[in-house]
Amino acid sequence: MKAVQLPKYESTPELIEIADPEVTSPLDVVVRIGGAGVCRTDLHIIEGQWAEKSGVTLPYTLGHENAGWVEAVGSAVTNVAVGDAVILHPLVTCGLCRACRDGDDVHCTSSSFPGIDSDGGYAEYLKTTARSAIRLDDALQPADVAALADAGLTAYHAVAKAARKLRPGDRAVVIGAGGLGHIGVQVLRALSSVEMIVVDRSAEALALARELGADHTVLADGTQVEQVIELTGGDGAEAVIDFVGEGGAIEDGVASLRRNGNYYVIGYGGTLAVPTIDIISTEINFIGNLVGSYNDLAELMVLAAQGRVTLHTSAYPLADFGQALDDLDHGKVRGRAILVP
Amino acid sequence: MKAVQLPKYESTPELIEIADPEVTSPLDVVVRIGGAGVCRTDLHIIEGQWAEKSGVTLPYTLGHENAGWVEAVGSAVTNVAVGDAVILHPLVTCGLCRACRDGDDVHCTSSSFPGIDSDGGYAEYLKTTARSAIRLDDALQPADVAALADAGLTAYHAVAKAARKLRPGDRAVVIGAGGLGHIGVQVLRALSSVEMIVVDRSAEALALARELGADHTVLADGTQVEQVIELTGGDGAEAVIDFVGEGGAIEDGVASLRRNGNYYVIGYGGTLAVPTIDIISTEINFIGNLVGSYNDLAELMVLAAQGRVTLHTSAYPLADFGQALDDLDHGKVRGRAILVP
Amino acid sequence: MKAVQLPKYESTPELIEIADPEVTSPLDVVVRIGGAGVCRTDLHIIEGQWAEKSGVTLPYTLGHENAGWVEAVGSAVTNVAVGDAVILHPLVTCGLCRACRDGDDVHCTSSSFPGIDSDGGYAEYLKTTARSAIRLDDALQPADVAALADAGLTAYHAVAKAARKLRPGDRAVVIGAGGLGHIGVQVLRALSSVEMIVVDRSAEALALARELGADHTVLADGTQVEQVIELTGGDGAEAVIDFVGEGGAIEDGVASLRRNGNYYVIGYGGTLAVPTIDIISTEINFIGNLVGSYNDLAELMVLAAQGRVTLHTSAYPLADFGQALDDLDHGKVRGRAILVP
Amino acid sequence: MKAVQLPKYESTPELIEIADPEVTSPLDVVVRIGGAGVCRTDLHIIEGQWAEKSGVTLPYTLGHENAGWVEAVGSAVTNVAVGDAVILHPLVTCGLCRACRDGDDVHCTSSSFPGIDSDGGYAEYLKTTARSAIRLDDALQPADVAALADAGLTAYHAVAKAARKLRPGDRAVVIGAGGLGHIGVQVLRALSSVEMIVVDRSAEALALARELGADHTVLADGTQVEQVIELTGGDGAEAVIDFVGEGGAIEDGVASLRRNGNYYVIGYGGTLAVPTIDIISTEINFIGNLVGSYNDLAELMVLAAQGRVTLHTSAYPLADFGQALDDLDHGKVRGRAILVP
Repeated sequence: MKAVQLPKYESTPELIEIADPEVTSPLDVVVRIGGAGVCRTDLHIIEGQWAEKSGVTLPYTLGHENAGWVEAVGSAVTNVAVGDAVILHPLVTCGLCRACRDGDDVHCTSSSFPGIDSDGGYAEYLKTTARSAIRLDDALQPADVAALADAGLTAYHAVAKAARKLRPGDRAVVIGAGGLGHIGVQVLRALSSVEMIVVDRSAEALALARELGADHTVLADGTQVEQVIELTGGDGAEAVIDFVGEGGAIEDGVASLRRNGNYYVIGYGGTLAVPTIDIISTEINFIGNLVGSYNDLAELMVLAAQGRVTLHTSAYPLADFGQALDDLDHGKVRGRAILVP
Repeated sequence: MKAVQLPKYESTPELIEIADPEVTSPLDVVVRIGGAGVCRTDLHIIEGQWAEKSGVTLPYTLGHENAGWVEAVGSAVTNVAVGDAVILHPLVTCGLCRACRDGDDVHCTSSSFPGIDSDGGYAEYLKTTARSAIRLDDALQPADVAALADAGLTAYHAVAKAARKLRPGDRAVVIGAGGLGHIGVQVLRALSSVEMIVVDRSAEALALARELGADHTVLADGTQVEQVIELTGGDGAEAVIDFVGEGGAIEDGVASLRRNGNYYVIGYGGTLAVPTIDIISTEINFIGNLVGSYNDLAELMVLAAQGRVTLHTSAYPLADFGQALDDLDHGKVRGRAILVP
Repeated sequence: MKAVQLPKYESTPELIEIADPEVTSPLDVVVRIGGAGVCRTDLHIIEGQWAEKSGVTLPYTLGHENAGWVEAVGSAVTNVAVGDAVILHPLVTCGLCRACRDGDDVHCTSSSFPGIDSDGGYAEYLKTTARSAIRLDDALQPADVAALADAGLTAYHAVAKAARKLRPGDRAVVIGAGGLGHIGVQVLRALSSVEMIVVDRSAEALALARELGADHTVLADGTQVEQVIELTGGDGAEAVIDFVGEGGAIEDGVASLRRNGNYYVIGYGGTLAVPTIDIISTEINFIGNLVGSYNDLAELMVLAAQGRVTLHTSAYPLADFGQALDDLDHGKVRGRAILVP
Repeated sequence: MKAVQLPKYESTPELIEIADPEVTSPLDVVVRIGGAGVCRTDLHIIEGQWAEKSGVTLPYTLGHENAGWVEAVGSAVTNVAVGDAVILHPLVTCGLCRACRDGDDVHCTSSSFPGIDSDGGYAEYLKTTARSAIRLDDALQPADVAALADAGLTAYHAVAKAARKLRPGDRAVVIGAGGLGHIGVQVLRALSSVEMIVVDRSAEALALARELGADHTVLADGTQVEQVIELTGGDGAEAVIDFVGEGGAIEDGVASLRRNGNYYVIGYGGTLAVPTIDIISTEINFIGNLVGSYNDLAELMVLAAQGRVTLHTSAYPLADFGQALDDLDHGKVRGRAILVP
């Protein structure tokens, strides 16, 4: 089959011919790729930033946001069948550790991450296991949802967690309405009637946020905290959902939080630095968020099938992977770039 | 009546004669003080550290950890009666704001704090309201439990919150087994079967922690994080309950936390500083804690009446308040100092 | 003032002149009534069905769903001010018992219920306390929301409880789309993306339910359980929300429930009878629901102000109370009848 | 190997020689049995009561409470190794359905139940999968804990669920202190400081309950409800945990419940029959309970290793299975009977 592999770091990936993957174990699932998301992380991988962290042996196939159709299954697979359209949870998990047995897949003590530390989906076929495959509703096409497999799942996991604690009348500040954030806005609207305030540096992103259900939008022009405080009647918001996590976003977010509020950390890059006296005197919480579980992804696919979460995508043939990466690097992709074999 | 008032900051409090408080409103409760805790905060108040924060007008009566007997009640008081032994929740709350209506007293939007911003319990009588008075079990004496009204309540609130998420087999690290910490150890033992690891700089404090139910104790001698990691089989603990919050305690605590773990911030003084990448890649949470609710204090009194939480106290006559403050300042009090009118 | 009082049971209420209520206690609030819901319970009261249960002394003023404007307040009232439009929580609660201190108002150990066991709102003025008054958003008129004070609150409380456990992809069966049910449908739509199946005997009620957000409607024509089972792919629903609670509704509801499902009991009249073997072998739960808290009502008012919950009402002048009761008795009221002084 | 098989219903099981089980799939685990609990269900199976329900093909090997040592493992097994002492979760679950992916094993949509619908542990070896095997602490012997695999797990699951909602000062009524109940008493004591009231018909069972941590015991002599109401100050209990579920236990339990209380159904046989008006006017809940999850069993094993849950057992050699069943049938077993190959 054809696959886009990285031969060495800081070099151009190559479209080469490799052997088709095969089912060798009862839970194996081979998927014919219908769409693979092209993500900023792929650029970082190529640059070598993940070399040590992933420990992957080169060459290997990129692509960690994958969807397609089941091509072959092992003897013990019961949740999907040959021909099913599927999206793939980004992790391949063991199913046996305490975290897996609690449905807390991302804390599996021995998972792999196709496209990061093993062969991914920039290819015609991908081998994974039944534990990663989620059957898609007939209303959904793999290429349309592939980019929800990782970025979308992360947004869903954090926002659904926040929504479970929010009541009508509460206010939620969403910081960042870009790739993850604009999915988060849709999820928050689908799951709650909270008063939603979206903060971003881009007027265009804010316009989209309004379309997707934001009640208020605030341009991050230096007065954003004042505006949020005013919009919340001087109190601050019950929840801050931070898709940025760097630059001044963290300080802004903390300053936008109400007493007894919850700060959801999703974006990263900066450092959370808060005097403990401030944490206790207002009794605020900081909640970490990492990807999401298999069932989280299944729930997000329900919202997608219902039309409550949509994603703009730009399809590229697999052979044009270089163009897709280049467009992404230069900010020329509208929505998310998807490689379609 | 006699009361110990602070005439001006950085000066010695004085035992003077002032008018007895009287019931003037239907929810008022006048309490004859049976015990008033002498707390390090009182030393800070005298030094003027709270002047701006509390905005209190001098002179006023100190004492924010109070218990006694009901002397008089207003016409609408139904929860306590004249003669009842009572402990007083440290805040006098409005009962009408959204937080009060949720049982979340400490976030009342218009509370007062006797002994901090209004007349407290270093006196023969204290005027409060029915919303602060909790009837004591016959097994309990006001002077024995007064010091649980603030310090004990804070420990209970945080530890009970932690205990609700802990399962058998989980590990909890308690940092600091001093004033609050040794109450926290007792509460954690009463509410869960978690494996409890207590860290402190004092061998004596650790010996007490073992007596009170700690499974493991770790002397903070520079190797404490290594020891905790080893005691948790290399994983770190599901919960860190930090009664210190300054010095190296925070860094130690974060380093002692397991993936998906919860860090309970109670002590303060230092700054929590964690890169957002670390928060999301391990999906950890930081949970603020501030005093506790009226019902929290009622629950703590149940544990006290059952003998599951005890406190060592040293009684001083009210007139010896100066000695009590001096002993506290010089580390000469065994357990908690209590003024008994 | 004018008030509609019941002189004796099984007799016609009378519009008479009585003394205006006055503020006598610091937390008292006198409300000028803007709307009082006319409810089937009022018919039952007149017939004497509540005589023993309420123990009220006749004559007294009817009307337990009330909204209006604050006319006068006691000295300790801080949450509403003279002139504010308000809706009244149906119970006047003590604020001091353990339930009140947990925000669980309906289990207050010494509450009164204006219109049931004390003077209600079929009058120009009603005296209540600050603990029952909720300030209305400027977008809302008392007469438009009065009927949400009891019936709407009950629906909100139960449905919000159900919604907190439901995830995208789960199915909820709402039994009964009448007075309470059609509010429940709106609340469920506002708070979740659950797949909603509404069952009713009336095609008209089902048509309204579809307009208000139901995904599927099922006419209760004898095949309703089969239809629900088919709509849920043979599984049954994760939640059954039963606004009927009598006739065959309970048996239908239990038969419509999935393994590990939750059955919310709201309507009443019949008997829940289930072999314990069926409860444990499918691990199902039955959840009672009774009115709702002050904060629940505040949250419902947010949904009303946002336009997410609306109610059709027919206004009657106070003097036409007899017509309103008669129309209600003969099924001639469109939506809810509201007396407007 | 030797195995005790049932050749046909209403006949005596036979100790025969059959082929040793072998690993044939990557997740298979073959366990050398160290102890198999002899349970009343086994008597019912022999009598044919389960014939239709289980649909098992005779002959097959009995024994559904099993523990032992790992004899062989498939290539994908990572959670246990050859030689490990293990206890076996009673169900063999698929790991792929939504319930399994939530850690809710007992609602797996395609599980099997060794000893009920497939070969069990009255044998030298048992074949199961990695998903059922839990490694035992070195302090525990398989024969000592085998009987916790099903009965104990059921008690743990229900009581741990109840304990998560109980606060100091709450009261819990445990109905039935027999096989499951006396484990429940120990679990409740380990997980909470609730005031525990145990009701049973046997004075001997109540004496044991007091030893194991009950605060009050009540002989079911016809006055049990009155006694419970008196012990709870006229209120009833916040939780009723019913291990009986038949006879008058259900009616007693409902009558012992406080407003807003939770009734945990575990025992079965009778019918829960409650007018819906009683469910809503007191807002009570009925909570079903079925076995428990893999992680529940792991947590129970922690309590067992800590000595917080113990079980009295009487060992019988495998060949004496007939004696064990006979002793059980005639009430002659002290504690639980365990077959030891």
